[in-house]
Parts: sequence; structure tokens; C-alpha cells
Amino acid sequence: MTAATMQVSQKDFQKAQEQLKLLKKDPGNETKLKLYGLFKQATEGPCNAPKPGMLDFVKKAKWDAWNSLGNLSQDDARQKYAELVSSLVSAESASQKKEASPEEGRHDGYETLIVTTKNNITKIMFNRPDRKNAINHQMYREIIKALEEAGKNDSTIAVITGNGDYYSSGNDLNNFTNVQPGEMEKMAKDGAVLLKEFVGHFIDFPKPLIAVVNGPAIGICVTVLALCDLVYASDRATFHSPFSQLGQSPEGCSSYLFPKIMGLAKASEMLLFNKKLTAAEACAQGLVTEVFPDSSFQKEVWARLEAYASLPKNSLAVSKQLLRGMEKEKLHAVNSRECEVLTERWLSDECVNAIVSFFQKKSKL
Amino acid sequence: MTAATMQVSQKDFQKAQEQLKLLKKDPGNETKLKLYGLFKQATEGPCNAPKPGMLDFVKKAKWDAWNSLGNLSQDDARQKYAELVSSLVSAESASQKKEASPEEGRHDGYETLIVTTKNNITKIMFNRPDRKNAINHQMYREIIKALEEAGKNDSTIAVITGNGDYYSSGNDLNNFTNVQPGEMEKMAKDGAVLLKEFVGHFIDFPKPLIAVVNGPAIGICVTVLALCDLVYASDRATFHSPFSQLGQSPEGCSSYLFPKIMGLAKASEMLLFNKKLTAAEACAQGLVTEVFPDSSFQKEVWARLEAYASLPKNSLAVSKQLLRGMEKEKLHAVNSRECEVLTERWLSDECVNAIVSFFQKKSKL
Amino acid sequence: MTAATMQVSQKDFQKAQEQLKLLKKDPGNETKLKLYGLFKQATEGPCNAPKPGMLDFVKKAKWDAWNSLGNLSQDDARQKYAELVSSLVSAESASQKKEASPEEGRHDGYETLIVTTKNNITKIMFNRPDRKNAINHQMYREIIKALEEAGKNDSTIAVITGNGDYYSSGNDLNNFTNVQPGEMEKMAKDGAVLLKEFVGHFIDFPKPLIAVVNGPAIGICVTVLALCDLVYASDRATFHSPFSQLGQSPEGCSSYLFPKIMGLAKASEMLLFNKKLTAAEACAQGLVTEVFPDSSFQKEVWARLEAYASLPKNSLAVSKQLLRGMEKEKLHAVNSRECEVLTERWLSDECVNAIVSFFQKKSKL
Repeated sequence: MTAATMQVSQKDFQKAQEQLKLLKKDPGNETKLKLYGLFKQATEGPCNAPKPGMLDFVKKAKWDAWNSLGNLSQDDARQKYAELVSSLVSAESASQKKEASPEEGRHDGYETLIVTTKNNITKIMFNRPDRKNAINHQMYREIIKALEEAGKNDSTIAVITGNGDYYSSGNDLNNFTNVQPGEMEKMAKDGAVLLKEFVGHFIDFPKPLIAVVNGPAIGICVTVLALCDLVYASDRATFHSPFSQLGQSPEGCSSYLFPKIMGLAKASEMLLFNKKLTAAEACAQGLVTEVFPDSSFQKEVWARLEAYASLPKNSLAVSKQLLRGMEKEKLHAVNSRECEVLTERWLSDECVNAIVSFFQKKSKL
Repeated sequence: MTAATMQVSQKDFQKAQEQLKLLKKDPGNETKLKLYGLFKQATEGPCNAPKPGMLDFVKKAKWDAWNSLGNLSQDDARQKYAELVSSLVSAESASQKKEASPEEGRHDGYETLIVTTKNNITKIMFNRPDRKNAINHQMYREIIKALEEAGKNDSTIAVITGNGDYYSSGNDLNNFTNVQPGEMEKMAKDGAVLLKEFVGHFIDFPKPLIAVVNGPAIGICVTVLALCDLVYASDRATFHSPFSQLGQSPEGCSSYLFPKIMGLAKASEMLLFNKKLTAAEACAQGLVTEVFPDSSFQKEVWARLEAYASLPKNSLAVSKQLLRGMEKEKLHAVNSRECEVLTERWLSDECVNAIVSFFQKKSKL
Repeated sequence: MTAATMQVSQKDFQKAQEQLKLLKKDPGNETKLKLYGLFKQATEGPCNAPKPGMLDFVKKAKWDAWNSLGNLSQDDARQKYAELVSSLVSAESASQKKEASPEEGRHDGYETLIVTTKNNITKIMFNRPDRKNAINHQMYREIIKALEEAGKNDSTIAVITGNGDYYSSGNDLNNFTNVQPGEMEKMAKDGAVLLKEFVGHFIDFPKPLIAVVNGPAIGICVTVLALCDLVYASDRATFHSPFSQLGQSPEGCSSYLFPKIMGLAKASEMLLFNKKLTAAEACAQGLVTEVFPDSSFQKEVWARLEAYASLPKNSLAVSKQLLRGMEKEKLHAVNSRECEVLTERWLSDECVNAIVSFFQKKSKL
């Protein structure tokens, strides 16, 4: 690299630092760790700080991010830093452009979702495509609000789906990393309260609720499928609930409903031993109603949904209540128990270590 | 058409009117509406009466039957009337001929069923083949009686099957149309009492109960399959429970047992969204034990049933009680709840309108 | 046969009688009946004793064993007697040789099992291959003890499997035949107490429990699979629970769990009507998690098990408790009820007759 190209790289690096300040959306901790590492590498060279203790969670993650860059040159680090910021800026402006074209029947007041009602269908679409539709705390709260609206309005059915390539990558693990060391217990308790309320809204939803799984689904997004009445999946979809891998435990009533739906031998494979299912496997095991080729997925599914939405509305609602109503009390008890167990898990060494090593893997560029 | 052929048609028409009076069985409201429409068309020409109000249920159905004939000529109407009566007369005499050859071990006192006991097997055969074995009130009561007899006698197992092409088309919708406008509430309550008793007899049946599904099955006949211990099906059989289409709701304990058997995603498809299953699909989803080619269906199935009937009788009875007994209380509660919901449904506008439009479609020739 | 060969046969016969006394293991009643019949035939010729009454259970079985040999010559009987003893001697010495090579991590104090712990896995292997791993009273007690040890030690998962060609042929029917006529009631009560404790240990097992089904499985060994968390099967495995054939009734919580896992129509086929399932069928119906070709079975399965055993241990244990814990009370109630019903069955004529005819068939050479 000549002095001239280094100059350019230096300029890009400074411009990138300015652009970063203008971003409206938090890029998430994973990205912030990458940016931190690259910034340190660009300005100070290879990591020379002493390794922090295991329990100093945040410092350790930052140190790992920097240290993982090894002997990357300062020029290359500046270059990569500038590229990363640039990709964040384009993602945000694309997302704003999308938001700028208002859709007919769109509900106000959502940032992480697009919620629309037309033809007797309320559609709740996860809308963090650049984050694989991972669910952060705001998105949990918005989904709760959207389910409340859809339950009360005039639509006959409600539909949940994802924008972009993913259905949803589940609980945003950045929900964990924003936590200061002394606040772990509070984080765990608040997280459990939010999760319990979220799952409770699926249990109590009063009309047919249909999941349109457009791509990979992970974690909490997989487990609450068992609380939906129909699950239509693209053949691109996969279903993964790697709880024990992350030192955690099943939620979303899956500990009760998965064995009921697919038998204990198949449920344990998914919920204890982290087996990832293809759409065809999930359908064979009764978690998914039907699988469609990705090329015709949206067209075929929405034609059906529109037909369903023209059926007698009250008949559908009372029929759903018959199928689900007798289980409600049981499901709320299961939900409570699962959240209790998960709170203990979140505070366990097993879980902390599993999440640290998850981010260590991710923060390697 | 010449004057001569018109003359013949006129003669046939009068003869048909005489023959109609001699029929022993009520041909059912659907057929009576067709006959009414054709008679009016034949004698008065295209419908010229004012359209009755939506709530005048019976008049509206008659008017629809007449009006649906449009500009059909009076000659053609006479002709069709005569043909329809003629088909009713032949069906009745065929059915009498069948009844005239008494089967060995036949139980007395049934008009809508053929009930026989031999080789330790009590067979209960639906016997309204000209009505697709639709279950009218008399038939509900006779099935209850036959289950009581079969439960108490010496046979080891009991078998339910259908005579003719259909297994059974389910609840005879004429059960609704015989009702006078002021008696809707009484009809709904009495219907629910009868349905609850009917399903209760399946729940409490003390020995192995096996369904031999020889052809299409609809509604209540599909749902109570989940209360049978084995379900053998011809590959001609289909399984359809279009409750919401008729503004109604699931019965026969299906709201509890179908999710238990096939998972919620598949059960909702059948019970909420009216999906009709092939025999192979019903088998894959656990509602059916095994499917046989129609050509060898009766032979293969009865060979098995005779083998089963020679197993230790008490061992089978207590084993069945173990599998079913622990659920009995729950199942009776589900049955009660389903009947309550259905009573409300029967009195709802959604249901009345759905049944009216069902007959309107049917009464078009 | 010449005098010389007869002489040899006579010598072998005497030698066999000596060898028989040196056997350390009881060869089981079935074999003893065969030996008895051959001895009588060899020494007294065709059966000439009067047929004992049906209720004189033991005498009748002995008489049947002798009488079943018909006109077999005394020479041939001696020959067969000698061959049978010889096969028993070789089986015993092979078994001793096997036991002589001590396996790493092997637990002490087991005669009917090989119990080992290594790589965080406790393996409980049925070890009566010459008896198809049939479970006699000692083996029931040893499995209970092994489950208690595995539940408390440091291993992450526990595995159950069989040594030799069979997984296990289930309850050793010789458990019944050692009984004196006056002690039937005591035998039935004691048997039920032991069975209830045995099944109770599966219900309460606190960590993931995995069945590695290496070959045919029968009876109690099939039913408790539903209490295991994963079931991996060789394609040589079959699954058979012929309770009604033996005048008995389902145990191992199968009356509750089989309908839950595979639906009632499929569960009844197995538990009431003795259907034997292939490994592929058992997998399709959710009793088995996955089937492997026999040639690579052990290799593939143990690679997975070792990966599972390295997952966070507490996370696995609490997740299992979530999936199973809410059912425990229910399962213990089911277990009690099944054992009560089975006690009555064991004392019934149907059961006694079915077991007598089972041994009659077996004792025919």
C-alpha cells in the first residue's frame, strides 16, 4: 500500500466516524463490538491490553473483539471500519425508503413491525430485515400491542410473517449484552416478565392466528408457532431452537405443546438436543401445516388466507376457542413455570459462558 | 316437442303425482324442495311470486327452488318431475328388497340400521344408502340403542360401517329444515340433548369399537372416529368436517381429540378451515389406522376383525378401559361444552344463512 | 442306528447329565421343560402317563413337554438331550469369557447388566444375551439400582441398550412358572409391586435417558421407551407388545403415553391388537426418534451421544424436567392403575391359559 492509498483510507475512516454518529438506529451490540475492535486496531494497532477477568462481561467482549483481529494492519482496519459503516448507512436508507411508501390500511405507531389490515386480515410483519428480524425488547412490546389491536378489531384472522429473507432469528442476544455486571438479576427478572406477557398474548389470542414462515426461524419464534392455529412454511424455512447450546431452556409453552404435537422422542431432539428441522421435517412432525415451494409461496398462501377470511367470522372464533380454550389455564401455568426456570438459567454460569462464546465466534470478522 | 310427446309427458306427470303419494319413506326436504319447484314450474311456468323476506325461512327456500328453474319449459319440468319420482320409487323398492333378505344374527327393531351379531362381532351398519347414510333424528336414536345392546351382549368387539357408496354424510341437514320459525330454540335445545347423548355413548362404550369406513365420511361421522379404537378405511374414503362453512362449530369431542391425535396445526386445518382429507392423509395424521385398496377392503378387513374377535375378551375390554378410561370425565366435559357452543351457533344468523345457501345450491337441478 | 452308535449316544447322554449339574446359571423353565421331556423320552420312551388336570399347572406343562415328543426314538432323545446341554455349556462359558474382560469405568455389583460410566455417559446394558435379555426378577432389581446410580452420579446423560442380537424380549415368562399353585396371589402382588417400582424409576429419572435399541424389543421394554427422551433404533429392531395375546394388559404408562404420542387409532393397534411394528413404522408413529442402518448403527449413534454429553449438563437436566416434570404426578397415577389391572389379569383364567399355551408351543422341539 502506497502513502497515497493510505491517505485515502485515512480520509474514509474519518468520514465513516462522522457518518456513524448520524445513524438513527442502534446497529446492535454485535456490530458495535466489531466497530470497536476495528477502531482500536486502526488507531492503536494489535491488541496490547491485558485480558479482563471472565466475570467482567462487557470488557471481556470488547477485548475479545479487538484481540480477535490479530495482526490486521491499521490501514486494513480503517478500510474495513469504513466499509462496515457504509453498509449500515445504506441499510438504514433502504429501510427508510421502504417505510416511506405507505401501505394501504397500515397501522400507526410501529417501528419494528409493519402492521396492516385489509380484506378482513390483520397482517403483523416483523420488520428488522437487516437484523434477521431478531426480536429486541422494543419489538416484543410492539408485537404485544399489535396482537391486542388485531384481537379487538374487525378482521376475521390475523397473520404473522417476516420481511426479507428470515422469518425471525428469535430473541436478540443483544438483549443480554446491554447489561451492566451489577444489573444481571434485574435484567433476568425484567426479561422474564416481558417474555411471559409476550407468550401470554399468543395463548389468549381470540381469533385464528396464522404464521406465514417465509424463511429460517429460530428460538422463541419457533416455539410460539405451536400457539398459532395454522403454520404455512416456504421450503426455504428451517426450524431451530438451540436452547441447551446457549445454556438456556425451552419457552413459549414448547415444553408442553411440542411433546403433545410430535411425541416426546421428536420433541426432545429439538428442545434438548438442538436439532434443526427442515420445513418438510417440521411438517411431518405436525409443527407445520403445509410446505410450499418458495417461488409460489406468497401467492398460494395469500390466496388461501383470503378465502379463509371470508368464512363466517364468529364461527371461526368460537371454534378456535373450543380447540384452545380448554387448555388456556394449563398453558398459562406452563408459561409461568418456563419463565421461572429461564430466569435461573440466565443467571447461571453455563448460560453466561455460552453467550460469551457465541459473541466471541460472531465478533471474529 | 310435438303435441303427442307433450301428451305422454302430461300422463307421466300425473302418474308420478300418484306414485309420490305411495312412497313410504319421506324423501327428505332437499328432494321435496326440488319436487315443489318442478311442480310449480310444470303447472304455473317460471316463478312469478314476490321474493319472501330473508327471515321467512321455509317460504324463502321454496321460492328459491322454484325461481332457480328460470325459464325451464313446463314440458321439461313435467318430464324432470316424473323422472325424479321414478328414481325415488326404484330406490325405495331396492331398499325393501335388501331388507327382505334377512341376515343371520340380525337384531330386531331397527329401520335406519342393519344390526347383526355373529362370530363374537356386533356389526352396526348405517342403512339409508339413498340418503348417503345421512343421520336423521331417528337414526341418532337407533345408533344409541345399538351401542347399548352391543355394549352389553356377548360379542368381543363392535364394528360400525355404512351400506352403499357412502360411510355417512353426517348430520341430515333436513333435521334443521323441518322446523317452524317459532320453534328454532326448542329445535336447537333438543338437537343438542340428542347429540350429547349420542356422543356420550361413544365415550362410554365398554369394548373395542372399530370403524370400517367404506366411503366418504362427513361431519359428525368423522369426528366420532376419534372415539373409535381402530379406524380401517377404503382408499375411496374421504374425511370432511366443514363446520365453519355451515356457520357451525366442532363436536364429537373433536375439539379435544383431533389436536391430541394430529397436532394443532393439522387439526385447525380440518376443524376451522374445512380441509377435506383423503384416506392416505387421514392415515398419515393418525385419524385412520390403516388404508386398504377398495377392491380388497371388505375381505382384508373382515379377516382381521375375525382374528381380533377371537382374542381374550376380558383382556381386550380392560385394556381399552385403561387407554380410554382415564379420559372419560374430560371427554364428557368436552362433549357438554361443544354442545352448548353448537346450540348458540344453530340460533345464529351466520348458521341460518349458511344453511339456507346450502339448500339453495342443492335445489338447483 | 447300529449298536455302536447307540453306545456312543448313551455315553454322551450320561456325560450330559453330569455337565448339567455343573451349570452355574439356571437355564430357565422353558429349557428345563425341554430337558425334562427329552430325559423322560430317552429313559422311558413315548409318554405313557395319564394327562394331568388343567389346573395342575406345573405337572401339565411337564406332561406336555414329554407328550409333545410323540414317537421320537430313545436314541434320538438322548442325542438331542446331549446337544441341548452342550449348547448351554458353551453359552455359559462364552458369557463368562465376556465378563472376564473388564471394561473401563465398569460399575460393580451387577450380574444381569453391564454398567459403565465414561465421557459423561452412564451406559446400562442388558446382559442376558442367551436369554434374549429377558428381564427376570433379579434384572428388574438391578435396573432399578443402575438407574438410581446413574441419576445421582456426574454423568450428563444415561443410555440403555442390549448386549447381543436382542434389545430385550421383555418380562421373562419364567417369572410366572416358578410359582407354586397356592402362591399365585402372592406372586401377582409381589410382581406388581416390583413392576410399579421399576416403571417409577423411569418416570422420575432426572437427566436425559436415551434408549439405543439394537434389535427386537418386546413387552415392557417397548412400553418404557415412551419414558425415554430419545430412542435411536437399528433397522433390525422391531417393537411388539402382545398383551392381549397373553391375556394381559398394557403397562409402563403406555396406556397413557402411546395414545399421546401416536394417536389412539395407532396406539390401539399395538396395545389391544398386538401389532408388531418395524423400526420405520415405530419412527413414523413417533415412538422412535430416528432409525439407522444396522451396519453403521453403533458408530453413528455413539458419535451423537458423545456430542450430546458435552452440552451444558444443568441446562439439559432442567429442560428435561420441564418437558417431563409437569406430567409426573399423572404418570405415577397411570402406573399404579396399570399395575392394579395387571394384578387382576395375572390371576385370571384368560391369562393362565394363555401362558400355558405359550409354553406348550415353546416346549415343542
